[in-house]
This record gives sequence, C-alpha cells and structure tokens, in this order.
Amino acid sequence: MQALMESVPNFSEGRREDVIVAIEQAANSVSGVRVLDRHSDTDHNRTVLTLVGPPNQLQESVYRAMERATELIDLRHHDGAHPRVGATDVVPFIPLAGTTMDDAINAARQLGQRVADKLKIPVYFYEEAAIRPDRQNLEQVRRKGFEELRDRIQTDEDRSPDLGPYAIHESAGAVIIGARGPLIAYNIYLNTNDLRIAKRIARAIRNSSGGLRYVKAMGIDIPDRGQVQVSMNLTNFHRTAVHTVFNLVRDEAQAYGVSISESEVVGLIPLAALADAGRYFLRLHEFKDDQILELKLLENLGAE
Amino acid sequence: MQALMESVPNFSEGRREDVIVAIEQAANSVSGVRVLDRHSDTDHNRTVLTLVGPPNQLQESVYRAMERATELIDLRHHDGAHPRVGATDVVPFIPLAGTTMDDAINAARQLGQRVADKLKIPVYFYEEAAIRPDRQNLEQVRRKGFEELRDRIQTDEDRSPDLGPYAIHESAGAVIIGARGPLIAYNIYLNTNDLRIAKRIARAIRNSSGGLRYVKAMGIDIPDRGQVQVSMNLTNFHRTAVHTVFNLVRDEAQAYGVSISESEVVGLIPLAALADAGRYFLRLHEFKDDQILELKLLENLGAE
Repeated sequence: MQALMESVPNFSEGRREDVIVAIEQAANSVSGVRVLDRHSDTDHNRTVLTLVGPPNQLQESVYRAMERATELIDLRHHDGAHPRVGATDVVPFIPLAGTTMDDAINAARQLGQRVADKLKIPVYFYEEAAIRPDRQNLEQVRRKGFEELRDRIQTDEDRSPDLGPYAIHESAGAVIIGARGPLIAYNIYLNTNDLRIAKRIARAIRNSSGGLRYVKAMGIDIPDRGQVQVSMNLTNFHRTAVHTVFNLVRDEAQAYGVSISESEVVGLIPLAALADAGRYFLRLHEFKDDQILELKLLENLGAE
Repeated sequence: MQALMESVPNFSEGRREDVIVAIEQAANSVSGVRVLDRHSDTDHNRTVLTLVGPPNQLQESVYRAMERATELIDLRHHDGAHPRVGATDVVPFIPLAGTTMDDAINAARQLGQRVADKLKIPVYFYEEAAIRPDRQNLEQVRRKGFEELRDRIQTDEDRSPDLGPYAIHESAGAVIIGARGPLIAYNIYLNTNDLRIAKRIARAIRNSSGGLRYVKAMGIDIPDRGQVQVSMNLTNFHRTAVHTVFNLVRDEAQAYGVSISESEVVGLIPLAALADAGRYFLRLHEFKDDQILELKLLENLGAE
C-alpha cells in the first residue's frame, strides 16, 4: 500500500471531445496515477478529472494535463456558464491514506512553482494552501474570472498573483491551486415523513444558519420510502467529523420524538473518515493511526 | 494501494541466529513483501515471522523461507518446549485490505501443492482451509508432534496427509498450512476498581463460558489507573465484530451501574475491523466496501 493523494483539476473545456481526451490521456500517462472519474459538462463548458496516486506522481500527472490544456484551450474564445480564470481553472490536492494536509499543501506549492516557472502562468493559492488569508475562499479568488483578472492583475495589488508573472497568460489565463479536505456526500434518513422536521434539523446543523462549520444541509422528502432525509455535504471531515454530525442529527431528531433509521454515503468516502468514526464510538481514545495494520505497512514502505 | 495479505509462519528454530537470519532473508527476498516482525523464543526453540504483501508475492516469500528451513533445520536433533510437526511447523494466511478469506484459502492450498510437489513434505490444512472437518483445530492436527506423526502417518488413516507423500520428510517433518482471521488484542477499561465486576463480565462474554464465539476474555486489575479491565483476544472479527463485543461489555457493565471509560487495541488492528465499527455505529446499512476511496482505487488496479 502506497501513500495516496487525490487531485480534482477543473479544465475550461466541456465540449470538444478531442481536447478533453488529450488532457485525460496526459493525466493518465504517469505510472501509478489513476483517472478515477471524468465529468464533462457542455453548459458549463468544463471538465473535472478525479486523479489518485502517490504524491509525486500525482503532481506530475496534473502538470502534464495542465501542459496540454495550456496548448489546447484558448480562453479568448471560450464561453460557458461556469466562472473561470484559466484553461486549467482550479486544482485542489486532497490528502488520502498515508498523507497529511501538509503533504497536500506541499504538492500544491510545488506544482504552483513549476507552473509559474515553466508555463509562465500566474498562480493563486487557495483554501489550506492559501498564503494570503483573503484567498482562502475560492470564490474570493476567482471573482468575475478571466476577463476581469486580465484587466486588473497588473494594477490592482489585491489581484496580484502569489507566484509567476504579473500578467495573465494570453490564452490560458491564470490558475488557482490549493489543498482541501475531501467532500463527503452524506445523508441521514429519519423515521418520519414530516418534511418540516428534516428541514428544521438541517437548519440547526448547517454552518450557514449557525450549525457545524463544515456542514451544508437541507431537508428533503423521499416519498418512495415514506421517510424524510437530511441531505448533507461534509466539506472537511478532519475538522467536523462524520460521527459528530451523526450525533447532532440524532439529538435534534430526538427532540421531535424521531429516530434515525439509516445513513448513507453517496459515492466515495476516504478510509480515514470511516476509521475515525469507528475509533470514536469504540472509545479508542489513545489509538494511533499506525496501529492500523495496512498503514503500518505503508509507514515501513515510506522508510525505505 | 495493492491487495494485501498477511502470513505468520512458525519455524522450529529459536536459538541458532545464523539459521534464523537465513530464513528471514529468504522471506525478505521477494519484492513487495515486508517482514513486519520477527520473534524468536529460545525456550520454545521457535521463530515466528510476520509477513505482509500482495497474495502471490507473499506465497512466494513463504515458500522461499520454507525451502531454507527445510535445508537448515533437522527435527531429529531439535528440542524445545513448543509442540511441532515440522521445520516449518505452521503457516496461516490472513486476509487484509482488498483480499477475502477465500483468497487466503487459495493461497494456503496453492502453497500446500507446491510444498508437497517440490519439497516432498506432507501437508495438512487447518482452520478455514481445512479439507476435513476434524482438522479445523490446529491442536487436533499437531497433537504430539513430529515423533508421533512419524510413527503413525502411514498406518493411521486418521493421520494421513491432505497432500504429499504418506511419509514425513526425514529431517523437516510435515507442515500445517491454513487460513484464519487476524487476532485482535482488545481491552476495555471500566469506571470501577472492583475486580469482581471485570471478572464477571469476562465470564459473560467469552466463548469458553457461554459468551461470544470468537472472544477470549479475562478480568484484570489495573491499579495504576484505579480501574479494572476486561482484557480480550478477538479471534475472528469478521464473525464476532469489535462493536458487538463493545456493546455487550457496555450492557453487562450497566447492570452493575458501571460505564466504559475507554477501550484500547494492543498492537495492530486490520483496517476492516475499524471501518466495520464506523459503518455499524453510523448505521450505514447499505454501505459497500468499494465506496471507500482507497479501496476503489485498489479495485481499479486489480482490473488491469
């Protein structure tokens, strides 16, 4: 088992199949890195790749894909519903088994340096990799996108890049690179069909209305089951744990005399999020990650 | 991340360092396989290696170690407190992340065939790899060891091997190969210093006195903490889950008005045991293993 990291680069092309395939092939050309998913949206004119591999190989894979995107995408002739600043628009790195957030930040910074030096593209760091606190939020960095940034990058101190030239790349624009936790799509089913209860619980637990910092939530009706659901996105399970969310929903539901029948993960969940929950509920207070047999092996491999 | 399996071969040599090192080096000579631990006992005159790697490489590693043990250990000149039938005495295979018990049984059977054919050593399969139901229990297979087996292997149908010659190898004896779940050393601390309570709970939960099938337990005093502990070995977490044990201890303790303060894993625990607990407590009833991101990747690798 090798140390793993994920990256989900977003490219500003969702229509020309030949361009999309060329970018994917470039990403796929590094041994040890897998393209787990490719999602293209024609309205947004945008493609998102999900890549997983050991940190160094992953960084190389993203770089090669960016090189192709820089050659093949010209933002001066690009339209789409999604805001964007670059041919490669956003590149988050996400730690998985055997890597830490610091490793992900390092990957972001190293890739940024290489892109600035070799591709001559200005680089902005966001979220956990942000250098300026006002750049933690992606939307705060992207703002109105390519055209606005082109006009203001040289004059507006507020828009100057963290690395690279003080002018955007003529055709490929700029790029926003960062590190963040993985998103988990997590839903909890309640033993009631009263949608008001699910909506009230969603309001109580989500960040936007005063709840947990890294939770987005809404209440929705699932008529096929005769139940309602608290439907959530958990944006940083390292800081707001899945079991914390579960317990809070359980307690809020109890106030209405309602119980949890089941929960579900839509798509994928990192190993550590599930193992953290096991550790918590079993009260393994002194447990260390390297007591997981498969991670112990990983550590030994790392020591070579 | 690669599919992983563990093997813990036991060799009948715990004193001659040069022999032990030669066996370990043979095990260590296969790329991808790690020697996680080596434990030699001079009284028992026995060495136990803990090896982890992808199934095929692991099988090769064990075979090479057995080859060396067959050359270097002569049971006719061996003494030690531990019962044994062979130079390589027992070889269990244990499934880890990405492998199943069936894979471990296959590894045992394949290694057995190779040992019978090439090394001319009679092979007995035990536990999950047993072919005869009376050979599931290791002690039932080993009985009084090398000398007894030498005398009876040809005459006693009850002692005839599952594979290989109907006579033991003159110097290397026989070998017992099997598949089993990993052992987990798991302790639960109670918020009391009353040892009788820990002993009663241990009695209620362990297999030997009517409790859970794959649990060994005793109550012990931990004066440094002013607490008592239910100290356990979980011998098959796939069938008796860690969370089942936790819940039962919690309920038994409640009957004495006592709560659990903490639990601990001594040494290593397989990833799946911890993830199972997370899944259970979060009520992820429909969750599938391949929703774990790192295992999804593994699956893709396997599909190549």
